[in-house]
Amino acid sequence: TATRVAILTVSDTASADAAADKSGPTIREILSAAGYDCRHLLIVPDDETRIRETVRAWCAQGDVDWVLTTGGTGFGVRDRTPEALRPLIERDAPGLVHLLLASSLQKTPLAALSRPVAGTVGNTLVITLPGSVKAVRENLEALLSGGVVEHALELVKGASSRQLHAGG
Amino acid sequence: TATRVAILTVSDTASADAAADKSGPTIREILSAAGYDCRHLLIVPDDETRIRETVRAWCAQGDVDWVLTTGGTGFGVRDRTPEALRPLIERDAPGLVHLLLASSLQKTPLAALSRPVAGTVGNTLVITLPGSVKAVRENLEALLSGGVVEHALELVKGASSRQLHAGG
Amino acid sequence: TATRVAILTVSDTASADAAADKSGPTIREILSAAGYDCRHLLIVPDDETRIRETVRAWCAQGDVDWVLTTGGTGFGVRDRTPEALRPLIERDAPGLVHLLLASSLQKTPLAALSRPVAGTVGNTLVITLPGSVKAVRENLEALLSGGVVEHALELVKGASSRQLHAGG
Ligand code: NA
Repeated sequence: TATRVAILTVSDTASADAAADKSGPTIREILSAAGYDCRHLLIVPDDETRIRETVRAWCAQGDVDWVLTTGGTGFGVRDRTPEALRPLIERDAPGLVHLLLASSLQKTPLAALSRPVAGTVGNTLVITLPGSVKAVRENLEALLSGGVVEHALELVKGASSRQLHAGG
Repeated sequence: TATRVAILTVSDTASADAAADKSGPTIREILSAAGYDCRHLLIVPDDETRIRETVRAWCAQGDVDWVLTTGGTGFGVRDRTPEALRPLIERDAPGLVHLLLASSLQKTPLAALSRPVAGTVGNTLVITLPGSVKAVRENLEALLSGGVVEHALELVKGASSRQLHAGG
Repeated sequence: TATRVAILTVSDTASADAAADKSGPTIREILSAAGYDCRHLLIVPDDETRIRETVRAWCAQGDVDWVLTTGGTGFGVRDRTPEALRPLIERDAPGLVHLLLASSLQKTPLAALSRPVAGTVGNTLVITLPGSVKAVRENLEALLSGGVVEHALELVKGASSRQLHAGG
Protein backbone atom coordinates (compact mmCIF):
# COMPACT_ATOMS: atom_id res chain seq x y z
CA THR A 1 0.00 0.00 0.00
CA ALA A 2 1.16 3.51 -0.79
CA THR A 3 2.86 5.59 1.85
CA ARG A 4 0.46 8.21 3.20
CA VAL A 5 1.82 11.77 3.28
CA ALA A 6 0.75 15.03 4.91
CA ILE A 7 2.22 18.36 3.78
CA LEU A 8 2.28 21.54 5.87
CA THR A 9 3.18 24.88 4.34
CA VAL A 10 4.41 27.30 6.99
CA SER A 11 4.12 30.88 5.79
CA ASP A 12 2.45 34.08 6.97
CA THR A 13 2.03 35.14 3.33
CA ALA A 14 0.50 31.89 2.05
CA SER A 15 -1.69 31.72 5.14
CA ALA A 16 -3.34 34.98 4.04
CA ASP A 17 -3.42 34.04 0.33
CA ALA A 18 -3.31 30.32 -0.50
CA ALA A 19 -2.48 31.11 -4.14
CA ALA A 20 0.92 32.31 -2.90
CA ASP A 21 1.81 28.77 -1.78
CA LYS A 22 4.11 27.33 -4.43
CA SER A 23 6.21 24.94 -2.33
CA GLY A 24 3.37 22.87 -0.80
CA PRO A 25 1.87 22.02 -4.21
CA THR A 26 5.39 21.30 -5.50
CA ILE A 27 5.90 18.66 -2.80
CA ARG A 28 2.49 17.15 -3.60
CA GLU A 29 3.25 17.02 -7.32
CA ILE A 30 6.67 15.39 -6.88
CA LEU A 31 5.52 12.83 -4.31
CA SER A 32 2.30 11.95 -6.16
CA ALA A 33 4.36 11.30 -9.30
CA ALA A 34 6.61 9.04 -7.20
CA GLY A 35 3.63 6.95 -6.05
CA TYR A 36 2.99 8.49 -2.64
CA ASP A 37 -0.57 9.07 -1.39
CA CYS A 38 -0.74 12.79 -0.48
CA ARG A 39 -3.70 13.01 1.90
CA HIS A 40 -3.36 16.43 3.49
CA LEU A 41 -2.06 19.80 2.36
CA LEU A 42 -2.53 22.61 4.86
CA ILE A 43 -1.17 26.11 5.30
CA VAL A 44 -0.48 27.72 8.67
CA PRO A 45 1.21 31.04 9.52
CA ASP A 46 4.68 31.14 11.14
CA ASP A 47 3.15 30.45 14.54
CA GLU A 48 4.96 27.97 16.76
CA THR A 49 1.82 26.59 18.41
CA ARG A 50 -0.16 26.23 15.17
CA ILE A 51 2.73 24.37 13.52
CA ARG A 52 3.31 22.03 16.46
CA GLU A 53 -0.36 21.20 17.05
CA THR A 54 -1.06 20.50 13.37
CA VAL A 55 1.83 18.04 13.13
CA ARG A 56 1.06 16.52 16.52
CA ALA A 57 -2.55 15.85 15.44
CA TRP A 58 -1.48 14.24 12.15
CA CYS A 59 0.97 11.95 13.97
CA ALA A 60 -1.62 11.04 16.62
CA GLN A 61 -4.51 10.25 14.31
CA GLY A 62 -2.47 7.50 12.65
CA ASP A 63 -3.49 8.06 9.03
CA VAL A 64 -0.15 9.36 7.75
CA ASP A 65 3.30 7.78 7.57
CA TRP A 66 5.31 10.85 6.57
CA VAL A 67 4.82 14.52 7.45
CA LEU A 68 6.73 17.13 5.46
CA THR A 69 6.76 20.82 6.24
CA THR A 70 8.01 23.62 3.99
CA GLY A 71 9.10 27.03 5.24
CA GLY A 72 10.11 28.64 8.49
CA THR A 73 13.48 26.89 8.79
CA GLY A 74 15.78 29.84 8.15
CA PHE A 75 17.17 32.71 10.25
CA GLY A 76 14.33 35.19 9.67
CA VAL A 77 12.84 36.61 12.84
CA ARG A 78 9.57 34.71 12.19
CA ASP A 79 11.26 31.38 11.31
CA ARG A 80 10.24 29.01 14.08
CA THR A 81 9.44 25.67 12.40
CA PRO A 82 12.41 23.80 13.96
CA GLU A 83 11.53 25.13 17.42
CA ALA A 84 7.89 24.13 16.89
CA LEU A 85 8.71 20.55 15.94
CA ARG A 86 11.81 19.56 17.90
CA PRO A 87 9.83 19.01 21.14
CA LEU A 88 7.65 16.45 19.32
CA ILE A 89 10.53 14.37 17.96
CA GLU A 90 11.01 11.10 19.85
CA ARG A 91 13.90 9.74 17.78
CA ASP A 92 16.29 12.19 16.08
CA ALA A 93 17.53 11.41 12.58
CA PRO A 94 20.91 13.18 12.26
CA GLY A 95 21.74 11.10 9.18
CA LEU A 96 18.80 12.54 7.26
CA VAL A 97 19.72 16.06 8.39
CA HIS A 98 23.29 15.44 7.23
CA LEU A 99 22.08 14.16 3.85
CA LEU A 100 19.85 17.22 3.34
CA LEU A 101 22.57 19.69 4.29
CA ALA A 102 25.39 17.96 2.43
CA SER A 103 23.39 17.71 -0.79
CA SER A 104 22.14 21.32 -0.55
CA LEU A 105 25.60 22.67 0.18
CA GLN A 106 26.81 21.13 -3.07
CA LYS A 107 24.47 23.61 -4.84
CA THR A 108 25.01 26.76 -2.77
CA PRO A 109 26.84 27.78 0.42
CA LEU A 110 23.63 29.59 1.46
CA ALA A 111 22.18 26.16 2.28
CA ALA A 112 24.10 26.63 5.54
CA LEU A 113 21.29 28.99 6.56
CA SER A 114 18.84 26.11 6.71
CA ARG A 115 18.04 24.57 10.08
CA PRO A 116 16.43 21.20 9.25
CA VAL A 117 14.78 18.84 11.71
CA ALA A 118 14.18 15.13 10.99
CA GLY A 119 13.00 12.30 13.17
CA THR A 120 10.12 10.11 14.21
CA VAL A 121 6.96 10.82 16.20
CA GLY A 122 5.41 7.46 17.00
CA ASN A 123 5.26 5.59 13.68
CA THR A 124 5.41 8.78 11.61
CA LEU A 125 8.51 10.25 9.98
CA VAL A 126 8.72 14.07 10.18
CA ILE A 127 11.05 16.12 7.97
CA THR A 128 11.24 19.90 7.56
CA LEU A 129 12.09 21.39 4.16
CA PRO A 130 13.01 25.02 3.38
CA GLY A 131 10.41 27.37 1.91
CA SER A 132 11.78 27.96 -1.59
CA VAL A 133 10.55 25.78 -4.47
CA LYS A 134 14.11 25.29 -5.64
CA ALA A 135 15.28 24.02 -2.24
CA VAL A 136 12.20 21.78 -1.95
CA ARG A 137 13.02 20.14 -5.29
CA GLU A 138 16.67 19.61 -4.32
CA ASN A 139 15.85 18.21 -0.88
CA LEU A 140 13.22 15.80 -2.20
CA GLU A 141 15.64 14.58 -4.85
CA ALA A 142 18.17 13.77 -2.10
CA LEU A 143 15.53 11.99 0.01
CA LEU A 144 14.05 9.94 -2.83
CA SER A 145 17.30 8.93 -4.51
CA GLY A 146 18.78 5.58 -3.56
CA GLY A 147 15.58 4.64 -1.73
CA VAL A 148 16.60 6.57 1.39
CA VAL A 149 13.20 7.70 2.57
CA GLU A 150 11.49 4.58 1.23
CA HIS A 151 13.69 2.40 3.47
CA ALA A 152 13.25 4.74 6.43
CA LEU A 153 9.49 4.55 6.06
CA GLU A 154 9.43 0.75 5.81
CA LEU A 155 11.34 0.64 9.09
CA VAL A 156 9.24 3.28 10.82
CA LYS A 157 6.11 1.37 9.77
CA GLY A 158 7.37 -1.81 11.45
CA ALA A 159 10.22 -3.61 9.67
CA SER A 160 13.43 -4.28 11.59
CA SER A 161 16.77 -2.78 10.55
CA ARG A 162 18.26 -6.29 10.34
CA GLN A 163 15.72 -7.35 7.71
CA LEU A 164 16.65 -4.40 5.51
CA HIS A 165 20.34 -4.12 6.51
CA ALA A 166 19.99 -0.35 6.61
CA GLY A 167 21.25 2.10 9.19
CA GLY A 168 20.76 -0.27 12.12
CA THR B 1 49.73 2.07 27.94
CA ALA B 2 47.12 0.70 25.57
CA THR B 3 43.71 2.31 25.38
CA ARG B 4 41.13 0.16 27.16
CA VAL B 5 37.98 -0.61 25.17
CA ALA B 6 34.54 -2.02 25.98
CA ILE B 7 32.23 -3.26 23.22
CA LEU B 8 28.46 -3.62 23.54
CA THR B 9 26.44 -5.47 20.93
CA VAL B 10 22.81 -4.35 20.98
CA SER B 11 20.56 -6.97 19.34
CA ASP B 12 17.53 -9.00 20.33
CA THR B 13 18.73 -11.79 18.06
CA ALA B 14 22.31 -11.97 19.33
CA SER B 15 21.05 -11.67 22.88
CA ALA B 16 19.20 -14.97 22.41
CA ASP B 17 22.05 -16.61 20.45
CA ALA B 18 25.56 -15.19 20.95
CA ALA B 19 26.82 -17.00 17.85
CA ALA B 20 24.66 -14.61 15.82
CA ASP B 21 26.83 -11.67 16.92
CA LYS B 22 29.15 -10.86 14.04
CA SER B 23 29.67 -7.13 14.56
CA GLY B 24 30.89 -7.19 18.18
CA PRO B 25 33.71 -9.68 17.39
CA THR B 26 34.53 -7.66 14.25
CA ILE B 27 35.12 -4.54 16.36
CA ARG B 28 37.28 -6.56 18.77
CA GLU B 29 39.33 -8.03 15.95
CA ILE B 30 39.96 -4.68 14.24
CA LEU B 31 40.79 -2.80 17.44
CA SER B 32 42.99 -5.57 18.86
CA ALA B 33 44.98 -5.60 15.61
CA ALA B 34 45.36 -1.81 15.98
CA GLY B 35 46.84 -2.19 19.47
CA TYR B 36 43.78 -1.50 21.61
CA ASP B 37 43.11 -3.51 24.78
CA CYS B 38 39.58 -4.92 24.37
CA ARG B 39 38.49 -5.72 27.92
CA HIS B 40 34.75 -6.28 27.64
CA LEU B 41 32.43 -7.65 24.97
CA LEU B 42 28.81 -7.96 26.05
CA ILE B 43 25.49 -8.50 24.30
CA VAL B 44 22.21 -6.94 25.41
CA PRO B 45 18.76 -6.95 23.74
CA ASP B 46 17.32 -3.75 22.21
CA ASP B 47 16.22 -2.58 25.65
CA GLU B 48 16.78 1.08 26.47
CA THR B 49 17.43 0.54 30.18
CA ARG B 50 19.78 -2.42 29.69
CA ILE B 51 21.84 -0.47 27.14
CA ARG B 52 22.05 2.68 29.25
CA GLU B 53 22.90 0.93 32.52
CA THR B 54 25.61 -1.23 30.95
CA VAL B 55 27.37 1.79 29.43
CA ARG B 56 26.84 3.87 32.56
CA ALA B 57 28.49 1.15 34.69
CA TRP B 58 31.49 0.85 32.35
CA CYS B 59 32.02 4.62 32.40
CA ALA B 60 31.64 4.79 36.19
CA GLN B 61 33.98 1.93 37.09
CA GLY B 62 36.87 3.71 35.39
CA ASP B 63 38.57 0.77 33.71
CA VAL B 64 37.75 1.68 30.11
CA ASP B 65 38.66 4.70 27.97
CA TRP B 66 36.42 4.01 24.97
CA VAL B 67 32.99 2.38 24.78
CA LEU B 68 31.68 1.32 21.38
CA THR B 69 28.23 -0.03 20.74
CA THR B 70 27.00 -1.78 17.60
CA GLY B 71 23.35 -2.03 16.58
CA GLY B 72 20.08 -0.33 17.39
CA THR B 73 20.89 2.99 15.69
CA GLY B 74 18.49 2.76 12.72
CA PHE B 75 14.78 3.47 12.19
CA GLY B 76 13.46 0.01 13.12
CA VAL B 77 10.76 0.06 15.75
CA ARG B 78 13.12 -1.58 18.27
CA ASP B 79 16.11 0.67 17.50
CA ARG B 80 16.68 2.67 20.68
CA THR B 81 20.45 2.82 21.21
CA PRO B 82 20.71 6.61 20.59
CA GLU B 83 17.83 7.27 22.99
CA ALA B 84 19.44 4.99 25.59
CA LEU B 85 22.80 6.76 25.48
CA ARG B 86 22.10 10.43 24.75
CA PRO B 87 21.03 11.15 28.37
CA LEU B 88 24.45 9.91 29.57
CA ILE B 89 26.51 12.12 27.27
CA GLU B 90 28.07 15.08 29.08
CA ARG B 91 29.94 16.56 26.11
CA ASP B 92 28.55 16.03 22.59
CA ALA B 93 30.95 15.32 19.74
CA PRO B 94 29.20 16.58 16.58
CA GLY B 95 32.50 16.47 14.68
CA LEU B 96 32.79 12.71 15.18
CA VAL B 97 29.14 12.25 14.16
CA HIS B 98 29.81 14.33 11.05
CA LEU B 99 32.90 12.27 10.18
CA LEU B 100 30.98 8.98 10.56
CA LEU B 101 28.04 10.15 8.45
CA ALA B 102 30.11 11.89 5.77
CA SER B 103 32.38 8.87 5.28
CA SER B 104 29.45 6.40 5.27
CA LEU B 105 27.44 8.51 2.82
CA GLN B 106 30.35 8.27 0.38
CA LYS B 107 29.63 4.51 0.22
CA THR B 108 25.80 4.48 0.20
CA PRO B 109 22.95 6.98 0.56
CA LEU B 110 21.33 4.50 2.98
CA ALA B 111 23.89 5.64 5.55
CA ALA B 112 21.44 8.51 6.05
CA LEU B 113 19.33 6.02 8.02
CA SER B 114 21.95 5.84 10.73
CA ARG B 115 21.44 7.90 13.89
CA PRO B 116 24.89 8.00 15.53
CA VAL B 117 25.70 9.39 18.96
CA ALA B 118 29.22 10.38 20.05
CA GLY B 119 30.52 12.17 23.11
CA THR B 120 32.14 11.84 26.50
CA VAL B 121 30.88 10.46 29.80
CA GLY B 122 33.41 11.47 32.44
CA ASN B 123 36.81 10.47 31.03
CA THR B 124 35.33 7.87 28.66
CA LEU B 125 34.58 8.35 24.97
CA VAL B 126 31.31 6.75 23.82
CA ILE B 127 30.54 6.12 20.14
CA THR B 128 27.63 4.17 18.61
CA LEU B 129 28.17 2.15 15.43
CA PRO B 130 25.50 0.58 13.19
CA GLY B 131 24.74 -3.12 13.44
CA SER B 132 26.01 -4.42 10.10
CA VAL B 133 29.56 -5.77 9.84
CA LYS B 134 30.12 -3.75 6.69
CA ALA B 135 29.12 -0.49 8.35
CA VAL B 136 31.22 -1.32 11.42
CA ARG B 137 34.31 -1.81 9.24
CA GLU B 138 33.71 1.46 7.37
CA ASN B 139 33.05 3.49 10.51
CA LEU B 140 36.13 2.14 12.31
CA GLU B 141 38.27 2.90 9.29
CA ALA B 142 37.06 6.52 9.43
CA LEU B 143 37.70 6.78 13.16
CA LEU B 144 41.16 5.20 13.07
CA SER B 145 42.47 6.99 9.98
CA GLY B 146 44.52 10.13 10.52
CA GLY B 147 44.71 9.40 14.24
CA VAL B 148 41.25 10.88 14.89
CA VAL B 149 40.15 8.68 17.74
CA GLU B 150 43.69 8.29 19.05
CA HIS B 151 43.92 12.08 19.52
CA ALA B 152 40.42 12.29 20.99
CA LEU B 153 41.31 9.61 23.53
CA GLU B 154 44.58 11.29 24.54
CA LEU B 155 42.58 14.45 25.24
CA VAL B 156 39.74 12.69 27.06
CA LYS B 157 42.33 10.93 29.22
CA GLY B 158 43.83 14.25 30.30
CA ALA B 159 45.91 16.09 27.69
CA SER B 160 44.93 19.65 26.75
CA SER B 161 43.83 20.60 23.25
CA ARG B 162 46.60 23.21 23.08
CA GLN B 163 49.30 20.56 23.57
CA LEU B 164 47.95 18.55 20.65
CA HIS B 165 46.63 21.46 18.54
CA ALA B 166 43.53 19.45 17.73
CA GLY B 167 39.94 20.53 17.72
CA GLY B 168 40.33 22.93 20.62
CA THR C 1 25.64 50.17 8.89
CA ALA C 2 28.45 47.75 9.70
CA THR C 3 27.73 44.54 11.57
CA ARG C 4 28.85 44.82 15.18
CA VAL C 5 31.03 41.98 16.44
CA ALA C 6 32.22 40.78 19.85
CA ILE C 7 35.08 38.28 20.18
CA LEU C 8 35.73 36.08 23.20
CA THR C 9 38.97 34.17 23.57
CA VAL C 10 38.53 31.19 25.89
CA SER C 11 41.87 30.04 27.27
CA ASP C 12 43.41 29.51 30.68
CA THR C 13 46.81 30.41 29.24
CA ALA C 14 45.75 33.63 27.49
CA SER C 15 43.71 34.59 30.53
CA ALA C 16 46.94 34.69 32.56
CA ASP C 17 48.98 36.33 29.77
CA ALA C 18 47.04 38.29 27.15
CA ALA C 19 50.09 38.31 24.84
CA ALA C 20 49.54 34.57 24.40
CA ASP C 21 46.22 35.22 22.67
CA LYS C 22 46.83 34.81 18.94
CA SER C 23 43.40 33.64 17.77
CA GLY C 24 41.29 36.50 19.16
CA PRO C 25 43.38 39.17 17.40
CA THR C 26 43.33 37.02 14.23
CA ILE C 27 39.54 37.08 14.20
CA ARG C 28 39.56 40.87 14.74
CA GLU C 29 42.05 41.41 11.94
CA ILE C 30 40.15 39.26 9.41
CA LEU C 31 36.72 40.66 10.25
CA SER C 32 37.91 44.29 10.37
CA ALA C 33 39.45 43.86 6.92
CA ALA C 34 36.08 42.48 5.74
CA GLY C 35 34.25 45.60 6.96
CA TYR C 36 32.93 44.39 10.30
CA ASP C 37 32.91 46.65 13.38
CA CYS C 38 34.80 44.71 16.08
CA ARG C 39 33.63 46.32 19.32
CA HIS C 40 34.77 43.89 22.01
CA LEU C 41 37.70 41.52 22.44
CA LEU C 42 37.85 39.81 25.81
CA ILE C 43 39.72 36.85 27.27
CA VAL C 44 38.28 34.48 29.87
CA PRO C 45 39.67 31.23 31.31
CA ASP C 46 38.09 27.85 30.44
CA ASP C 47 35.39 28.43 33.03
CA GLU C 48 31.85 27.48 32.06
CA THR C 49 30.15 30.23 34.06
CA ARG C 50 32.54 33.00 32.94
CA ILE C 51 32.06 32.04 29.28
CA ARG C 52 28.27 31.81 29.51
CA GLU C 53 27.79 35.04 31.47
CA THR C 54 30.06 37.06 29.17
CA VAL C 55 28.18 35.96 26.05
CA ARG C 56 24.80 36.31 27.75
CA ALA C 57 25.62 39.92 28.71
CA TRP C 58 26.76 40.82 25.17
CA CYS C 59 23.56 39.38 23.70
CA ALA C 60 21.37 41.13 26.28
CA GLN C 61 22.90 44.60 26.01
CA GLY C 62 21.99 44.74 22.32
CA ASP C 63 25.11 46.40 20.95
CA VAL C 64 26.45 43.42 19.02
CA ASP C 65 25.03 41.41 16.12
CA TRP C 66 27.55 38.58 16.06
CA VAL C 67 29.47 36.92 18.90
CA LEU C 68 32.42 34.68 18.05
CA THR C 69 34.36 32.63 20.55
CA THR C 70 37.70 30.93 20.00
CA GLY C 71 38.98 27.99 22.06
CA GLY C 72 37.57 25.39 24.41
CA THR C 73 35.67 23.39 21.78
CA GLY C 74 37.83 20.26 21.73
CA PHE C 75 38.07 17.11 23.85
CA GLY C 76 40.56 18.40 26.42
CA VAL C 77 39.45 17.99 30.01
CA ARG C 78 39.09 21.79 30.37
CA ASP C 79 37.24 22.29 27.05
CA ARG C 80 33.77 23.45 28.03
CA THR C 81 32.82 26.23 25.59
CA PRO C 82 30.02 24.23 23.90
CA GLU C 83 28.53 23.27 27.26
CA ALA C 84 28.76 26.91 28.40
CA LEU C 85 26.90 28.26 25.38
CA ARG C 86 24.39 25.60 24.34
CA PRO C 87 21.94 26.53 27.15
CA LEU C 88 21.82 30.11 25.82
CA ILE C 89 20.99 29.16 22.23
CA GLU C 90 17.34 29.79 21.34
CA ARG C 91 17.51 28.70 17.69
CA ASP C 92 20.07 26.07 16.66
CA ALA C 93 21.90 26.48 13.36
CA PRO C 94 22.87 22.93 12.28
CA GLY C 95 23.55 24.19 8.74
CA LEU C 96 26.32 26.48 9.97
CA VAL C 97 27.76 23.68 12.10
CA HIS C 98 27.69 21.40 9.06
CA LEU C 99 29.44 24.02 6.92
CA LEU C 100 32.19 24.52 9.52
CA LEU C 101 32.81 20.80 9.98
CA ALA C 102 32.59 19.87 6.29
CA SER C 103 35.02 22.60 5.25
CA SER C 104 37.46 21.81 8.09
CA LEU C 105 37.37 18.09 7.37
CA GLN C 106 38.50 18.83 3.82
CA LYS C 107 41.79 20.06 5.35
CA THR C 108 42.35 17.48 8.10
CA PRO C 109 40.49 14.52 9.65
CA LEU C 110 41.42 15.97 13.07
CA ALA C 111 38.70 18.58 12.50
CA ALA C 112 36.41 15.79 13.71
CA LEU C 113 37.66 16.65 17.21
CA SER C 114 35.93 20.01 17.08
CA ARG C 115 32.56 20.41 18.79
CA PRO C 116 31.10 23.61 17.29
CA VAL C 117 27.94 25.37 18.44
CA ALA C 118 26.03 27.88 16.28
CA GLY C 119 22.70 29.58 16.72
CA THR C 120 20.88 32.70 17.77
CA VAL C 121 20.36 34.34 21.15
CA GLY C 122 17.71 37.00 20.67
CA ASN C 123 18.86 39.02 17.63
CA THR C 124 22.49 37.98 18.01
CA LEU C 125 24.25 35.21 16.09
CA VAL C 126 26.65 33.13 18.21
CA ILE C 127 29.33 30.88 16.66
CA THR C 128 32.16 29.02 18.39
CA LEU C 129 35.50 28.61 16.61
CA PRO C 130 38.40 26.32 17.62
CA GLY C 131 41.42 27.73 19.43
CA SER C 132 44.15 27.38 16.82
CA VAL C 133 44.92 30.31 14.50
CA LYS C 134 44.93 27.96 11.52
CA ALA C 135 41.46 26.61 12.30
CA VAL C 136 40.15 30.14 12.95
CA ARG C 137 41.34 31.26 9.50
CA GLU C 138 39.76 28.25 7.79
CA ASN C 139 36.45 28.55 9.63
CA LEU C 140 36.15 32.28 8.94
CA GLU C 141 36.89 31.69 5.27
CA ALA C 142 34.00 29.19 5.14
CA LEU C 143 31.64 31.57 6.94
CA LEU C 144 32.51 34.64 4.87
CA SER C 145 32.57 32.95 1.44
CA GLY C 146 29.40 33.10 -0.62
CA GLY C 147 27.91 35.63 1.77
CA VAL C 148 26.82 32.93 4.24
CA VAL C 149 27.22 34.83 7.48
CA GLU C 150 26.31 38.15 5.86
CA HIS C 151 22.90 36.72 4.84
CA ALA C 152 22.41 35.05 8.22
CA LEU C 153 23.07 38.35 9.96
CA GLU C 154 20.67 40.32 7.73
CA LEU C 155 17.97 37.82 8.67
CA VAL C 156 18.80 37.75 12.37
CA LYS C 157 18.70 41.56 12.39
CA GLY C 158 15.18 41.55 10.98
CA ALA C 159 14.80 40.63 7.30
CA SER C 160 12.51 37.75 6.36
CA SER C 161 13.81 34.59 4.67
CA ARG C 162 11.36 35.13 1.82
CA GLN C 163 12.89 38.52 0.99
CA LEU C 164 16.33 36.99 0.70
CA HIS C 165 15.31 33.51 -0.53
CA ALA C 166 17.85 31.95 1.78
CA GLY C 167 17.46 28.95 4.04
CA GLY C 168 13.81 29.67 4.84
NA1 NA D 1 29.03 16.65 5.38
